[in-house]
Amino acid sequence: MTISMYDASIPVFIRTLDNLAAILEKAAAHAEAKKIDATVLLNSRLFPDMFPLTRQVQIAADMAKAGGSRLAGLQPPSFEDNEKSFAELQERLRKTVAHLEGIRPEQINGTETRTVTWPTRAGDRTLPGLPYLVSWILPNLYFHVTTAYNILRHNGVELGKAEFLGKLF
Amino acid sequence: MTISMYDASIPVFIRTLDNLAAILEKAAAHAEAKKIDATVLLNSRLFPDMFPLTRQVQIAADMAKAGGSRLAGLQPPSFEDNEKSFAELQERLRKTVAHLEGIRPEQINGTETRTVTWPTRAGDRTLPGLPYLVSWILPNLYFHVTTAYNILRHNGVELGKAEFLGKLF
Repeated sequence: MTISMYDASIPVFIRTLDNLAAILEKAAAHAEAKKIDATVLLNSRLFPDMFPLTRQVQIAADMAKAGGSRLAGLQPPSFEDNEKSFAELQERLRKTVAHLEGIRPEQINGTETRTVTWPTRAGDRTLPGLPYLVSWILPNLYFHVTTAYNILRHNGVELGKAEFLGKLF
Repeated sequence: MTISMYDASIPVFIRTLDNLAAILEKAAAHAEAKKIDATVLLNSRLFPDMFPLTRQVQIAADMAKAGGSRLAGLQPPSFEDNEKSFAELQERLRKTVAHLEGIRPEQINGTETRTVTWPTRAGDRTLPGLPYLVSWILPNLYFHVTTAYNILRHNGVELGKAEFLGKLF
């Protein structure tokens, strides 16, 4: 009659980052085919005070990394924000997925009421595991992956929502 | 040791649509303050073959409506796609939230393995309740709310991610 915190987190994070990797692969191929400098896409943003593509990908990866780690009671591993190419962003996603794959269901299950505390620019935040997952990590993760997709679509990369959703059927 | 399908669906859908309503309220106020014809924002899109703002809002609402209804074994109510103003989109969101508020936890809980079938442009689709919720409805819902947000940010409406996430602390 129930689902587990693991069901609602780690496999969803991995799937979403794998879909983002496929989107970035198409973007890199588009840049190469159209002889567009990849850094133009990597530095594109939808408005001057929004983050560019590279930062959107870093934050998406970090949301999944932090969400999985903090629910499991682990300190998230720290990755430098120094990616300068599509290949380096792919490596960031690969490292993040590998970390998530190392988290076992029994580390996550039962954390719906565990207090999770994490640092933000506005100071430390605290929520129980369930709202931390469904109202903080997941919306943030999807926000940054969708914005990465939208930046690329706005720049003419041929993508469809099927890439964002991944293969389901 | 577990969370319920209800915890992971109806309250999340309602919260997300309420956040979208707050975003649209800011957009309507921005149009009025800057003497921008609201229909310019409602018809804006990030790329010629992407959907405009109005359609993004309709699809977001429909994803929540369909997700809640189909998990509960109900036929989703049908709303005409005829909104022409911010006020009419708010009414669409209000009706959708009212429908979701009428779905009780016992109608949703235990549906993680129930077969859900729904029509798409590509024909009927079928998934068990859990992947239907976490890999179809939720990513689609967040995709269209984020894209609505991005269309408005791209057009200069002053919004922050706090509006997308809603009040949590």
